[in-house]
Amino acid sequence: MTEPAKPVHWEDFRVGETVAFGRKHVTREEIVTFAREFDPQPFHLDEAMARDTLLGGLAASGWHSCAMLMRMICDDYLSGAAGMGGAGMDEVRWLKPVRPGDVLTARRTCLEARGSSSRPHMGLVKLFYEVVNQHSQVVMTWVGVQMFRTRAAGGDGADAA
Amino acid sequence: MTEPAKPVHWEDFRVGETVAFGRKHVTREEIVTFAREFDPQPFHLDEAMARDTLLGGLAASGWHSCAMLMRMICDDYLSGAAGMGGAGMDEVRWLKPVRPGDVLTARRTCLEARGSSSRPHMGLVKLFYEVVNQHSQVVMTWVGVQMFRTRAAGGDGADAA
Repeated sequence: MTEPAKPVHWEDFRVGETVAFGRKHVTREEIVTFAREFDPQPFHLDEAMARDTLLGGLAASGWHSCAMLMRMICDDYLSGAAGMGGAGMDEVRWLKPVRPGDVLTARRTCLEARGSSSRPHMGLVKLFYEVVNQHSQVVMTWVGVQMFRTRAAGGDGADAA
Repeated sequence: MTEPAKPVHWEDFRVGETVAFGRKHVTREEIVTFAREFDPQPFHLDEAMARDTLLGGLAASGWHSCAMLMRMICDDYLSGAAGMGGAGMDEVRWLKPVRPGDVLTARRTCLEARGSSSRPHMGLVKLFYEVVNQHSQVVMTWVGVQMFRTRAAGGDGADAA
């Protein structure tokens, strides 16, 4: 994996700011491999069977798209940074099919940032994520709350909680 | 994959009904393999590094848990049935860590069922899903809207939309 340029702490998030990141070339093999293991519905497995479905052709499982975004998030700023995990996601939306050959990029917009009263070395950030294809179409979005170490707490990536 | 016993159509969902299904034994190798590809944060990769984090030990990526639930859904009733896909998920919650050796089962509760005015051969179902471990702890939940072919439309699994 790509090493992030710098550990991101809670203080680095600014409400209203949008940051572009990531790049993922999606292959047919990856789509089918993921689907075989986790989501073996016809429209994720076989081009011919997929053609007559609502998706109109082979497309990645929505959970595969989530996983690919998660990897872009890790590569961009989360791995080795001051991330402490997340408790869930809301409004996961699969807006357009993700096709073999697509090149995906991502954007994150900070909606909220607040400290944690119970854990002063931790802060919470609410982020809106978008995944965009090579045609500038938004193919997926989600909203999630993530926990980050505060720079004030002096954390360096290993969680001392 | 296990072949579902019978294709499930939109008419088979009854609001308020809870159905138990699925069984998944989670291995350390699967947790680490998924994390390496999609979510390489320390607490999903390495027992020693995970011990001092909020998770308190190695745990599956939340997206891996989602993918494992999706597979249980497919095996139980979605693959080869009259499923037509889903547009998104809400309230994805990772409530407890999923550990190596855990044995997961699932429940789905039908919250709403309504026809589609634009596509008379299709119906929408809003389902609450829970994943439960061998200690009867609910480890994950989500709420999703899924599209199913109506039995009245005479569909047999191939979407004629």
